Amino acid sequence: MNMVLLFDHDFYAADKVRLKDRRVQHIKQIQRAKSGSTLEVGLLNGSKGLGQITRMEANTIEMEVTLNTASAPPLPLTLILALPRPKMLRRIISTITTLGIKKLVLINSYRVEKSYWQSPALSTENIHQYIHLGLEQAKDTIPPTIAMCKRFKPFVEDTLPELIQGTIPLVAHPKAEEACPDNLPRQVTLAVGPEGGFIPYEIEKLELSGFSSIHLGPRILTVETAIPVLAAKLFSF
Amino acid sequence: MNMVLLFDHDFYAADKVRLKDRRVQHIKQIQRAKSGSTLEVGLLNGSKGLGQITRMEANTIEMEVTLNTASAPPLPLTLILALPRPKMLRRIISTITTLGIKKLVLINSYRVEKSYWQSPALSTENIHQYIHLGLEQAKDTIPPTIAMCKRFKPFVEDTLPELIQGTIPLVAHPKAEEACPDNLPRQVTLAVGPEGGFIPYEIEKLELSGFSSIHLGPRILTVETAIPVLAAKLFSF
Repeated sequence: MNMVLLFDHDFYAADKVRLKDRRVQHIKQIQRAKSGSTLEVGLLNGSKGLGQITRMEANTIEMEVTLNTASAPPLPLTLILALPRPKMLRRIISTITTLGIKKLVLINSYRVEKSYWQSPALSTENIHQYIHLGLEQAKDTIPPTIAMCKRFKPFVEDTLPELIQGTIPLVAHPKAEEACPDNLPRQVTLAVGPEGGFIPYEIEKLELSGFSSIHLGPRILTVETAIPVLAAKLFSF
Repeated sequence: MNMVLLFDHDFYAADKVRLKDRRVQHIKQIQRAKSGSTLEVGLLNGSKGLGQITRMEANTIEMEVTLNTASAPPLPLTLILALPRPKMLRRIISTITTLGIKKLVLINSYRVEKSYWQSPALSTENIHQYIHLGLEQAKDTIPPTIAMCKRFKPFVEDTLPELIQGTIPLVAHPKAEEACPDNLPRQVTLAVGPEGGFIPYEIEKLELSGFSSIHLGPRILTVETAIPVLAAKLFSF
């Protein structure tokens, strides 16, 4: 937690917050803050700034906060991702949040196990938690939006055309002939398959929709490693 | 496992191997191979190629293998990494292996908890296991070497000068003024601190040794995300 994430409901006056949940223990035990300490804070969907601790009790911390800095600009990237297994999903949502990706679409694919769609990891509450951890890590306040499309073909035929409008549509595919381009000048829509990759039919459907296949070198990366590699190659930050 | 990693002790004839460990279950249950199936294989520290299953029993698989392809060229990067907590270390060793990093030096730093150095994750056996998983994922056969230096100051003063010779020495530091450079033309030595970063004294020591501090943008990435981002920025692959 490099920044304490604040929520509207934390405020009991215009510039005063009262925290009562896991953040209290973290601030005490990990950040080792005391009454009077100043911490970096940021309001979800709002500005960032500093908070000074005015009261500290067993399960409560109060701070006076000044929010006067905007969050860093978003990464101009929409990520379409074949639903990863739940354990991965948790980390991946935090990771894409730290990278500044603001739009994630989770889709189905032949190699996605059906049971993944029933995982508790996909509950709104859990997804928010993974996002909040990512925002606290990255010192960002703007959460990504996450959409889910459980059927591949309707997604490609009905949703994709509008989604990719005005963007450069790319699909990561180990067998592609082109390498991932560097430092693109505009919004990218990037599709990443499941472990094991998209099947040929899926690559074909994406290419028919305007996607170019690109590879990430001679080694096969896990999805978890491929995402930061792609983000770093596509944009300068 | 995108490639079955073979060891010298698997061979019972010049081109015949017999497998008896976790690989057998993986080949059967995940890859769903049968007698006659052809799999990608690679010999640790050797060449890659194909193996055809000639016999399949409950706990044994035999293959006839042809090894005729060299592994991909290494990433020209030596990574100096403050020892991460054990759970992370496991994943990070696999990740650096998939990225093609062939030299990792684990060092101490003020923010590394002393107990991490006693972790079973650092046993030779465990480290080999994490490396092998990475090689199987990446379809690579050349493992990284991993060195450990438990004291920061002697490492910087006695070991670093030789280590960085002929390379571009960089240290990832969120407060740096320079951004991470793109596509460097030669060998890089890259230092990455613990979660929370190197302390100012450590940055100063590294800079005095010739390291340039570079940042990765306005968001603070976890070590696990920073490593693939750095690798992708520093080199084209």
